[in-house]
Amino acid sequence: MKERFIVIGGDAAGMSAASKARRENPELEIIALEKGDWASYAACGLPYYLKGNVDNIEDLIAIPPEVFQEKRDIDLRLNHEVTKIIPEKKKIVVKSQRNEIEFNYNKLLISTGARVARPRIEGIDSQGVFFLRGMSDGIKIREYLEKREPKSVLIVGGGYIGLEMAEAFHTRGMSVSIVELLPHLLSTFSPEIVEIVERDVKDYARLYLGRRVNSIREIDKDKLSVSISDGENKNQEEIETAMVLMATGIIPETSLARDTGIKLGKSGAIITDEYGETNISAIYAAGDCTEVKSVVTGQNIYLPLALTANRNGRAVGTTIAGEKTPLSPIAGTAVVKVFQLEVATTGLTDLDAAKEYGFNPVKVTIDSHSRAGYCPGAKPIKISLIADRDSKRILGSSMVGEEGVSKRIDIIATALYSRITVQELENLDLAYAPPFSPVWDPVLTAARVLNGRLK
Amino acid sequence: MKERFIVIGGDAAGMSAASKARRENPELEIIALEKGDWASYAACGLPYYLKGNVDNIEDLIAIPPEVFQEKRDIDLRLNHEVTKIIPEKKKIVVKSQRNEIEFNYNKLLISTGARVARPRIEGIDSQGVFFLRGMSDGIKIREYLEKREPKSVLIVGGGYIGLEMAEAFHTRGMSVSIVELLPHLLSTFSPEIVEIVERDVKDYARLYLGRRVNSIREIDKDKLSVSISDGENKNQEEIETAMVLMATGIIPETSLARDTGIKLGKSGAIITDEYGETNISAIYAAGDCTEVKSVVTGQNIYLPLALTANRNGRAVGTTIAGEKTPLSPIAGTAVVKVFQLEVATTGLTDLDAAKEYGFNPVKVTIDSHSRAGYCPGAKPIKISLIADRDSKRILGSSMVGEEGVSKRIDIIATALYSRITVQELENLDLAYAPPFSPVWDPVLTAARVLNGRLK
Repeated sequence: MKERFIVIGGDAAGMSAASKARRENPELEIIALEKGDWASYAACGLPYYLKGNVDNIEDLIAIPPEVFQEKRDIDLRLNHEVTKIIPEKKKIVVKSQRNEIEFNYNKLLISTGARVARPRIEGIDSQGVFFLRGMSDGIKIREYLEKREPKSVLIVGGGYIGLEMAEAFHTRGMSVSIVELLPHLLSTFSPEIVEIVERDVKDYARLYLGRRVNSIREIDKDKLSVSISDGENKNQEEIETAMVLMATGIIPETSLARDTGIKLGKSGAIITDEYGETNISAIYAAGDCTEVKSVVTGQNIYLPLALTANRNGRAVGTTIAGEKTPLSPIAGTAVVKVFQLEVATTGLTDLDAAKEYGFNPVKVTIDSHSRAGYCPGAKPIKISLIADRDSKRILGSSMVGEEGVSKRIDIIATALYSRITVQELENLDLAYAPPFSPVWDPVLTAARVLNGRLK
Repeated sequence: MKERFIVIGGDAAGMSAASKARRENPELEIIALEKGDWASYAACGLPYYLKGNVDNIEDLIAIPPEVFQEKRDIDLRLNHEVTKIIPEKKKIVVKSQRNEIEFNYNKLLISTGARVARPRIEGIDSQGVFFLRGMSDGIKIREYLEKREPKSVLIVGGGYIGLEMAEAFHTRGMSVSIVELLPHLLSTFSPEIVEIVERDVKDYARLYLGRRVNSIREIDKDKLSVSISDGENKNQEEIETAMVLMATGIIPETSLARDTGIKLGKSGAIITDEYGETNISAIYAAGDCTEVKSVVTGQNIYLPLALTANRNGRAVGTTIAGEKTPLSPIAGTAVVKVFQLEVATTGLTDLDAAKEYGFNPVKVTIDSHSRAGYCPGAKPIKISLIADRDSKRILGSSMVGEEGVSKRIDIIATALYSRITVQELENLDLAYAPPFSPVWDPVLTAARVLNGRLK
């Protein structure tokens, strides 16, 4: 009998694993079970779909279901929810729309992803309050936008999704407010960088920082009233809005794993070994439901990002196909477009966090330009760079600017993998031509200034 | 008595050395002698000055002479040419416009740069034939363009300067022809990449590849006739043009060094030790007149680029100020804007060259996009990536695309320093957001495909 590989969750990690396993091992029987209506889609594209940049929701589908079925010989089943895993019997219980079935497996991959965090707020189920995670959420919101044409929106949460959606709503001509519980937007970025972002965002949206949402109330069919206050429940304020978007982050979807006795980390995400196998033999996990190792600290972190899900899915697929392939540690690199700005981060950018990991961190922030100063169109770039004073190793960086940021952060990401020192970073032979960089690239300038501080 | 540090040549390497030496050692007496009218300028900006992007030639001056004099206590003398070095006496002979002087030195830096290669072509001194190297050349050409308003130009040489100038002339509304002796433009880039460039350039300029210029003849005051033929002197053709720009490359300016008995490499450029000192004690060299070590091969190469000159000048300045600082090896990273395209290269990109250095090279070329496929404005990117089959080390890359190329090459440049393998490159955690990259950045895709070829 054929070996059977079952994938639970049909998005980035799951379908990457299934596809790679198929390519490497034509003998395997592969079943992918997805509880929702959609598989293999680019959730990161939803803000652009809602902005109106992407016309059809189908454009966000990376690989259509029929390709898995017909070309890749992967038995992908939508609307199939795994309700139970019985590891002793290597069996799972699956609920479809019609009935309940059982499958035996030889290898299992849990790639159940993450779901939105639903804060306990009175009135959160009111009409006009939306969450954005999957394709169905995207469709619902776009329908609402097109049918009701709301003139205003209040976004709860100032992270990536909140900011991308602020841009999307603004582009549609809506008046945008953002409420963030923490004192600043983009809390994982260097404060010096976030300052620039906040200054820019204020031109497009009303910012309520360090404020919590207490309740949401329906005033009439097209109007909500949102009550916010500061952390100590003072300075209460009522904001009227036509629509609310909850962008308060995501949490790993690991209830099935937990019920099965699979070990979870502090974050609530699944812990695996270096090949993605959980504490239960033959059960693997990958994607947004897992912790991954940081290349900077060597410790596990929970940082659900698309590339990691794709890559680790692929690695598990290869391992299951027969060739043991380790997962990659991550640098924690991220970039986001916020109105006119590109904002990016990688590695450790918080001094306190760096200290907790046992480093002796030192940070500089420099200002430079995206092009030679005399070149028309040169835009300011600000870079924060952090290193360890003892080992001189680069630990991380955040950057912001109107151009040339999204790929500059990758220089630092690459540097983190090689554990290079500040001096080595300063010595890099980076590309220079007047339309693309000053002679000393801003990254080199940051390294030079930081190097001076290390002496 | 104070130690005296004399710099010969007042551009990037020389003035970087002088400035850094001053900062590190306030006791030093520093004299910088420049034979021309200009010091510390951005020659790389000249094409943009000629395009009309940069209004004033003064905008290209990095640091004005009076700043060196007044703020940095550096005795910068323009129009002072060093005609002789007498190492036994630690003395130099200097010719100024008025007289001849001698200076004693304790430390000497030769940073005489490079000059244009003047091919032996009949009629090369005709009116309307120009070279472009220094500021005076730039002024002369711009004057000619503005006064005579030539309608056509023939550029001899299809390297960086030739192509940047093609864009500059085209922007001015001139009809542009390019004659290149070699079979292709940008001969140091991967052929697969150059193919794209040539296709693009053809929309803006007439290309004559594999053709040499035999003679230039003045027809009348506003018209030249240029005779070209193929390598075997066949297929002779006459091209009429209002103007000729010779962009046939540069050669190191080392006659003074050679006359002094300083060791030169095969390229004709000065050989130094790792601190920039020549074979003659107390005489250093840096910048476009020197060879530098390649980080890929460990061998010396002649690759005169602005960043290297600045950086190595700085290193020598630091050493001379008292703190021994090694020069940095270079990856050979370069980027050039050619009409709509960004074209970049780093490391070894030629299979034959790689073999000569003892590698067992393997190359792939992939096509990807600058943004997520569904994102409006996504542009094609093509990447050639080369690795050594034996060690799996990355050796080099060339890239071309309409956006996102200039800094992507820096990922590879950084990788070259760390001698990372193809697998390690594939595992990098690079930034992803739909407006900036597909989930798998084109660099990762190239690494993945190349990795497949290595197995």
